[in-house]
Amino acid sequence: MTESSSTSSHQNSSIYIHHHCENPKPLQVADAHIIYDEKNYLPDEVPDTRDIALPYNEDKINEISIDIGGSLAKLCYSKPDPQAGGVRLCFYSLETDKIDLFIRFIQEILVQYYHHDPAHHLYNENLVVIATGGGAYKYYDKLRHELHCTVQKEDEMQCLIIGLDFFVTEIKREVFYFDEAKHCYVEVELNDDENGQTEVIEDQYPYLLVNIGSGVSMIKVTGPGPDSFLRVGGSSLGGGTLWGLLSILTDCRTFDEMLEMAAQGNNENVDLLVGDIYGQGYNSIGLKANHIASSMGKVYKKVFEDEKGRNEDREHRLHKFHQQDIARSLLYAVSNNIGQIAYLQAQRYNLKKIYFAGSYIRNHYQTIRTLSYAIDFWSGGTKKAYFLRHEGYLGSMGAFLMRRAD
Amino acid sequence: MTESSSTSSHQNSSIYIHHHCENPKPLQVADAHIIYDEKNYLPDEVPDTRDIALPYNEDKINEISIDIGGSLAKLCYSKPDPQAGGVRLCFYSLETDKIDLFIRFIQEILVQYYHHDPAHHLYNENLVVIATGGGAYKYYDKLRHELHCTVQKEDEMQCLIIGLDFFVTEIKREVFYFDEAKHCYVEVELNDDENGQTEVIEDQYPYLLVNIGSGVSMIKVTGPGPDSFLRVGGSSLGGGTLWGLLSILTDCRTFDEMLEMAAQGNNENVDLLVGDIYGQGYNSIGLKANHIASSMGKVYKKVFEDEKGRNEDREHRLHKFHQQDIARSLLYAVSNNIGQIAYLQAQRYNLKKIYFAGSYIRNHYQTIRTLSYAIDFWSGGTKKAYFLRHEGYLGSMGAFLMRRAD
Repeated sequence: MTESSSTSSHQNSSIYIHHHCENPKPLQVADAHIIYDEKNYLPDEVPDTRDIALPYNEDKINEISIDIGGSLAKLCYSKPDPQAGGVRLCFYSLETDKIDLFIRFIQEILVQYYHHDPAHHLYNENLVVIATGGGAYKYYDKLRHELHCTVQKEDEMQCLIIGLDFFVTEIKREVFYFDEAKHCYVEVELNDDENGQTEVIEDQYPYLLVNIGSGVSMIKVTGPGPDSFLRVGGSSLGGGTLWGLLSILTDCRTFDEMLEMAAQGNNENVDLLVGDIYGQGYNSIGLKANHIASSMGKVYKKVFEDEKGRNEDREHRLHKFHQQDIARSLLYAVSNNIGQIAYLQAQRYNLKKIYFAGSYIRNHYQTIRTLSYAIDFWSGGTKKAYFLRHEGYLGSMGAFLMRRAD
Repeated sequence: MTESSSTSSHQNSSIYIHHHCENPKPLQVADAHIIYDEKNYLPDEVPDTRDIALPYNEDKINEISIDIGGSLAKLCYSKPDPQAGGVRLCFYSLETDKIDLFIRFIQEILVQYYHHDPAHHLYNENLVVIATGGGAYKYYDKLRHELHCTVQKEDEMQCLIIGLDFFVTEIKREVFYFDEAKHCYVEVELNDDENGQTEVIEDQYPYLLVNIGSGVSMIKVTGPGPDSFLRVGGSSLGGGTLWGLLSILTDCRTFDEMLEMAAQGNNENVDLLVGDIYGQGYNSIGLKANHIASSMGKVYKKVFEDEKGRNEDREHRLHKFHQQDIARSLLYAVSNNIGQIAYLQAQRYNLKKIYFAGSYIRNHYQTIRTLSYAIDFWSGGTKKAYFLRHEGYLGSMGAFLMRRAD
């Protein structure tokens, strides 16, 4: 991936360049690391928007990047790090529907760290906002008009790949998987670190990237260059589907409340299991009694169990169920489904490594575990699911790295 | 499939025998046909539980068959046809939860057509109820105890295959597909009929059977015998999921009301389209502006658009949406998803023909069209989706054909 740094990512002369365009500006990544506030870091806490330090990066950075998706608008910018030296990469996100607020936040960042005040209405051609995601196109004119600088549009799929490659190759402690047997997270590195203490991923390529936002995109990557990736498919059953259903089936006010509710639920109260249909497992085809045969498959039976139930309106029908059970069932349904389709795509293209990213996972234990288990189940253990701490920021990180030297 | 009838299905000596067990009882299928009540048959009406006439079948039939699934219990039995001669095969279904009522119905059939009255409590070993589906195991003792005859259990996957093969090879006007360009159903036959008026399917094997009940099973079939089929996968997002969600998100009282509601809805009011995210299509990856990026992806945004919305309870949140729009969105979501997974399985095993069956479809236009379109879209037109009029009765038909001559 990087000419000089693939085996020497911790030497002083470690430069990161991707191969997706001509003349990308290099980034000094020697000793790049996620910044943990030691006071607040708990063993179970998976930091997802923590800054990344680039202590040896002294060059002036004239770029910020944004990735405006269907649900969330993501920002990646740099600021000086007076204490450690160099710069920090910082990450921020806000609902896409609050686009005006998002743009105001960018303006504040530009004033504070980029010496550019859009309020002066003076166009600064040296300053570049690199924009990806659908909103880069939908809001292009608005961005240009309100930020008064260059807006450089980049392809969403490409930025996801570039961002992923950067995180995987250059940032320690970024990538991890869930070990079902030991019931814990395990961090991995692409290259052996000096201590030999982290588990190593062999062979960066090929892999499947599954990005789960409002919807799902699945991208096959076979090498470092612009001709080596292909969006092979996706799904419309993504984060937007789960949040949408749970926003009208529960009283939750945020995504995190929904996930917390799911953690408390018992899906077996609403899901139809093989055991419910067979009275036992369906052994000849390897389906255990607790395998989910039909998500939410018990619900309509309960609603329609008698004439009275059939005649009730929606509000009364819903009261027959615990919100928590519905939340858990749907979290499993959406996650298992993504896992299955990801497996089938990986199998199709003979890919052993599957990276799950996007704002859906929110580093939530059940979601990570469900996706992991699905890959393990369908592949008979021959494929592996990986996750990233900066899971929602692949696109904005990749866009940031599309800085041009011209 | 049949030794003497593969090219002579309309001659007097047309015997049907499958190859899934030793000594299956043959069935006389010369001139087998679906019975249409001419007075009630409308051009658009797709008859799904109509009797099948076997006018030359004179042998006494001592068997009935049942397929008890997660949601529906299906029955296949024969009765004499004094007018046309021979027998009719008849089909009946009831919710599995009404198992006692179902058994009472079977008892009535046994009295009326099989000269067996379970009320006499006399065990009749010559009479056989061939049972498949999970309920064959779950309710085995109950069936034996209340029907007082032999209960012969048969594997569900195998019965589906046997039933499908029978319908495809022996019953004219049973199989059809949806022609998107001409916007109409087209009946197909496996063999050329004398008139040459029906479209012909070449090569019975191989194919993928996708059976959609509460959940989904996908079975690859490469030949006529018991070793030539394999359940390659399935999905927990099936009929039970759609009915479950719609039973608490709408006021509908039946499945048909739900489908009617879906037909009236506009899913674009609740789904997030590529055009909503990009302001246009995402042309470089071939996604048009009206492609669904996220099913129900607009819903949570509307619920959470302000603090007031966030604080409302579920009942009030739901009122922001039309039931019809939600119904259509979820019908598309579940159907498209099944279509995609079916495509990936067919692609994996190099199968060009995909039969969709099960009680989910209910011969509903939108569902048929969505499944057809999904296969066409994902396969670039290289694979084809087929449907059956007796879609819900593959398992019970196949079980019926497991009559033993011993």
